Amino acid sequence: VQDTSGQSVKVSVVGASGYTGAELLRLLSKHPHVEVVSITSRKFSGKRLKDVFPHLSGSKFASLPFSELDAESVGKGSDVVFCCLPHAASFPVVKEIFESSGARIVDFSADFRFRNPETYERTYGVEHGAKELFRFASYGLPELNREEIRRSRIVANPGCYPTSVILALLPAVKSELIDRSFPVVADSKSGVTGAGRKEKLELLFCEVNESFKAYALKGHRHAPEISEKLGIDNLRFIPHLVPMSRGILSTVYFKTQAKGAELAGIYEEFYRDEPFVAVSGKPPSTSDVRGTNCCRLFIVKDERTGLATVISVIDNIGKGASGQAVQNFNVMFGFDERTGLNQIPLWP
Amino acid sequence: VQDTSGQSVKVSVVGASGYTGAELLRLLSKHPHVEVVSITSRKFSGKRLKDVFPHLSGSKFASLPFSELDAESVGKGSDVVFCCLPHAASFPVVKEIFESSGARIVDFSADFRFRNPETYERTYGVEHGAKELFRFASYGLPELNREEIRRSRIVANPGCYPTSVILALLPAVKSELIDRSFPVVADSKSGVTGAGRKEKLELLFCEVNESFKAYALKGHRHAPEISEKLGIDNLRFIPHLVPMSRGILSTVYFKTQAKGAELAGIYEEFYRDEPFVAVSGKPPSTSDVRGTNCCRLFIVKDERTGLATVISVIDNIGKGASGQAVQNFNVMFGFDERTGLNQIPLWP
Amino acid sequence: VQDTSGQSVKVSVVGASGYTGAELLRLLSKHPHVEVVSITSRKFSGKRLKDVFPHLSGSKFASLPFSELDAESVGKGSDVVFCCLPHAASFPVVKEIFESSGARIVDFSADFRFRNPETYERTYGVEHGAKELFRFASYGLPELNREEIRRSRIVANPGCYPTSVILALLPAVKSELIDRSFPVVADSKSGVTGAGRKEKLELLFCEVNESFKAYALKGHRHAPEISEKLGIDNLRFIPHLVPMSRGILSTVYFKTQAKGAELAGIYEEFYRDEPFVAVSGKPPSTSDVRGTNCCRLFIVKDERTGLATVISVIDNIGKGASGQAVQNFNVMFGFDERTGLNQIPLWP
Amino acid sequence: VQDTSGQSVKVSVVGASGYTGAELLRLLSKHPHVEVVSITSRKFSGKRLKDVFPHLSGSKFASLPFSELDAESVGKGSDVVFCCLPHAASFPVVKEIFESSGARIVDFSADFRFRNPETYERTYGVEHGAKELFRFASYGLPELNREEIRRSRIVANPGCYPTSVILALLPAVKSELIDRSFPVVADSKSGVTGAGRKEKLELLFCEVNESFKAYALKGHRHAPEISEKLGIDNLRFIPHLVPMSRGILSTVYFKTQAKGAELAGIYEEFYRDEPFVAVSGKPPSTSDVRGTNCCRLFIVKDERTGLATVISVIDNIGKGASGQAVQNFNVMFGFDERTGLNQIPLWP
Repeated sequence: VQDTSGQSVKVSVVGASGYTGAELLRLLSKHPHVEVVSITSRKFSGKRLKDVFPHLSGSKFASLPFSELDAESVGKGSDVVFCCLPHAASFPVVKEIFESSGARIVDFSADFRFRNPETYERTYGVEHGAKELFRFASYGLPELNREEIRRSRIVANPGCYPTSVILALLPAVKSELIDRSFPVVADSKSGVTGAGRKEKLELLFCEVNESFKAYALKGHRHAPEISEKLGIDNLRFIPHLVPMSRGILSTVYFKTQAKGAELAGIYEEFYRDEPFVAVSGKPPSTSDVRGTNCCRLFIVKDERTGLATVISVIDNIGKGASGQAVQNFNVMFGFDERTGLNQIPLWP
Repeated sequence: VQDTSGQSVKVSVVGASGYTGAELLRLLSKHPHVEVVSITSRKFSGKRLKDVFPHLSGSKFASLPFSELDAESVGKGSDVVFCCLPHAASFPVVKEIFESSGARIVDFSADFRFRNPETYERTYGVEHGAKELFRFASYGLPELNREEIRRSRIVANPGCYPTSVILALLPAVKSELIDRSFPVVADSKSGVTGAGRKEKLELLFCEVNESFKAYALKGHRHAPEISEKLGIDNLRFIPHLVPMSRGILSTVYFKTQAKGAELAGIYEEFYRDEPFVAVSGKPPSTSDVRGTNCCRLFIVKDERTGLATVISVIDNIGKGASGQAVQNFNVMFGFDERTGLNQIPLWP
Repeated sequence: VQDTSGQSVKVSVVGASGYTGAELLRLLSKHPHVEVVSITSRKFSGKRLKDVFPHLSGSKFASLPFSELDAESVGKGSDVVFCCLPHAASFPVVKEIFESSGARIVDFSADFRFRNPETYERTYGVEHGAKELFRFASYGLPELNREEIRRSRIVANPGCYPTSVILALLPAVKSELIDRSFPVVADSKSGVTGAGRKEKLELLFCEVNESFKAYALKGHRHAPEISEKLGIDNLRFIPHLVPMSRGILSTVYFKTQAKGAELAGIYEEFYRDEPFVAVSGKPPSTSDVRGTNCCRLFIVKDERTGLATVISVIDNIGKGASGQAVQNFNVMFGFDERTGLNQIPLWP
Repeated sequence: VQDTSGQSVKVSVVGASGYTGAELLRLLSKHPHVEVVSITSRKFSGKRLKDVFPHLSGSKFASLPFSELDAESVGKGSDVVFCCLPHAASFPVVKEIFESSGARIVDFSADFRFRNPETYERTYGVEHGAKELFRFASYGLPELNREEIRRSRIVANPGCYPTSVILALLPAVKSELIDRSFPVVADSKSGVTGAGRKEKLELLFCEVNESFKAYALKGHRHAPEISEKLGIDNLRFIPHLVPMSRGILSTVYFKTQAKGAELAGIYEEFYRDEPFVAVSGKPPSTSDVRGTNCCRLFIVKDERTGLATVISVIDNIGKGASGQAVQNFNVMFGFDERTGLNQIPLWP
């Protein structure tokens, strides 16, 4: 960690008017080494941050106006750009910033998450128009490849579900404890912010409230992301929608010969030095990590079936999106990873 | 179905002040062949139904007073007793009613659900004091053993989780489609009424609201119930708590050689004549069945992993408790099973 | 009440895909004298009722398709049309039905609620294109003017807030108990269905959940409706949004010389014969009336300030919209007013 | 403000296992000048902070054990004691700390809020056993009497409702703008944490969820507190319960000759230098201040009725309890009032 006292990094946020943008700006407002120089939004262009997000009235960036996106000028005026656009809308912007400036990019979309464009095109059903940038991009899960993130121009911030599931399986995969003859089942449950801030019927309060459902049963786009990063093809991933605003809990099942105590020991050892992943002595709730960049894991073995079960909780727009983006930013710019990420959960 | 026009059955409800009691009395209030003659509650003895449950002010039984339980007199005054007591509190009452009267009993507890007392004692960790009654009891899931229910003195109303999981697996089990060399995974999510109306810290609004958690990871008492009824030992069952009042959604995974279309066909065929179980063309939400005795199923096969997944939704205090009890009552007394159970879900 | 056994009225529902439409169709599904012959929706034209509203899969009208609106043909094929369109969209449809057919109309919009078009145009800021129909229309609050409703071609179903506030004040107004030298304050709180099923940012789950706010502080369109019907100009009405799906609670304050016991007696006497309004012995909750056409009132006098306070609860899409529409329908067609409206609230 | 760099104050929290205790410890964990030396709880004695409150696992005080209360030793070991006990349970503890040590006390209960014991005894219906301490106590609303707080041994932290209502009325009272011939109406709505962390039936999730109600209609104990502090006898205060965890919104009505613009100017001027009270340009939501010590006000005049309406939002366990306690602590010990209170609301 370099001496960073007093250093200030110029930051822009593109597509800042969604839930991940709001959370990112909340976090950046408290980051000692960040100066937010521009925020863009097609919808709210001309309005100030505090007009769109009254809860950010106390932010030091409260009076910053949203502007229309001009990728070149955003890139030239920034050391780093957080790009919070949807998939396929993101790569043209990333490309323009990359080519016209020296700014580094943390991309929230799926556009640079895969190892190669083919997997992306197959999964998302769109042609990728910036294939040549894949070699400059790394997958932004520090627990998986911190070193690559440190030197990348583009960091592809992981999906929320993949973050929760990969962290739940990583120690077992690395220790080769998973019996590959049986599928790995990842049954995930997400709060509603995960669906984005879109004016869609199915996201209205009265449609979601007092209801619970599974979705994407024919296959969710996050499944190939999990499979690729863990090297697990034999994966069944099913997401569900919980009537609450924030949080993901994944219940992950895999077959293993390892005993429960052994597994717990391996998990604890694996994450010992990680600042944001902890193994719990009892099953965590999503509210234990609300508003933070933390992941809490609990592992238990059922001897009768031979299945290990890992419970993994994160805040889907914290470690699952904006918190992770700030962690990646800290890695990229040589700050202590915890800088600006020491929130204590709001409870209840 | 016998000619039942005008017939009125004398009904008592023991332990009627919980959520299942409230729901049962809501349903019985509209049942054309029911006269509720007594309701008991230790806590609310002396108060009238409408004082304890203002929403039942419009019930024809609104002015009925709660009384202290006197099992013998309750039994003697009733054709049937619905017993809504917790496990271990129930069997002494059932025993006394059984021995002192001719009343039939629908028991909401676990006390008579298993085939033998040993499984009960092992699962619930208490000694069973009415072992001799097991041979008079049947498991009250009409889709599983309607005929036995018809002639039983005691009907053991199933648990809410078992109802949702058994209905999700029954056609596959009966058709021997499950590859038994792999575990069956049942990942269930329940609304909070499932935990009962108890003055416990973890059930307070602020503890449950905006949070999601798994529990009973070392083994839940409903797992042996599911295993016994389906003949599946190789089962991993994990329950979760959803911040909503009503509903269970179970996501059930099993390995099978059968194709998706074949499975859907078998499920539809199996439940064709069942009045309360329907196979859906798209994944159901818990709100699709709220306030009803219905179960909706959706089945999908993932060819890559060989796993079939069944989504099963019920109202946990409807088909998962009080609705099912009324269905059992209808079977026991020869009424059309749908009598008093034609509710349309309240939505939103 | 005429002999109506076996009678079946042909009913159409225009604009049936919102929350009031869904609730209306839920109620009509159980009405013994209703045959729903057509339902219209621009958005869902071609889909069947159960595809748009899975909770209505058990309705006898589940397979009815939504069609595009053709007002003339809807009118000609129906005895009564329930028109669930927004204000200003409604009057052209009502006009066409009125002129081309003999169908009677229950209009959910504000278009025919006022005594004259001028108040409407001032309040809603649009020109009224069917002024000549005002003399055929009555205000559909049976507790206020049942006889007029009985013989009207057009019944203007009241607003949800006005229903809750008018019922809270009507006995005091009729008995001339209100000290008019002081303002009447109506502080109302509504569940989110009251805002309609619109794809708007401020109605998304995450915007509404865990938040409470006041709105329309410069004046809400329901205030003139309340003022006109009660003859109270000196009214301050402020609505609030509660993070729940259903229910309105209004807290109404007025100055009076009358004592508390006297007021309670007058209120009870006033509503004695009303099937859907009850005076409670203790303060009601919105959940006491959820899913029903009931209004529950509680009145208390504070001697120190001289203020009487009335608490009024209704289900905003029950007595506040669709339930009231069915009650009006019953009045119009000579059925017992309670027909099809004997729901017991779903609780919890 | 004195030079406080490096200064550390020894803090104890008595009765720390409720919602206000949890929130206080969350705030104190980030306060640069606080060392928490002891926390007490009868119920959780022996457990560590993080075992009782998993969300505080990241606090620097996470491993601190709860102990049984020994008032003398707590007082002797502390510079200040935050006492989070209920009314009547608090004064004996405050008395013992006061008499046996030099520790200053911030008391969350009502025991020292009134100017004299008589009002307390009349309001709370219990005898006060430490009347002699009233002259050492001040009412802990800094916006009202900051100077007195600075030098008091005992600071009585205000009630949550009074905080929201007093801040809504204070500028109007001080400017003598209120027409006293008409009552002041304060219609307040609170989240459920306001009712405390008690194992009571009416606080269960399923009782509160999807429901809204008024309570304490015969008179709430916070009314005399508001009346005394503002010198307004002619007050009608009615509290309501909102199905959400945090937040109070008060809608306050008073008659005035002043115009709307004038009022807004007076309010802005009055609070110009207050760090935690802001006058908003549009009506605030409770979520705008969630998790903070802020109060946001909006004022509007209705010329027809002559009523001004003030909307006031706070977090009931922030500015309404624990945040305010920390603000008082900062005043008492000469720290900048904002120290440790710069939270940005968690949204959504």
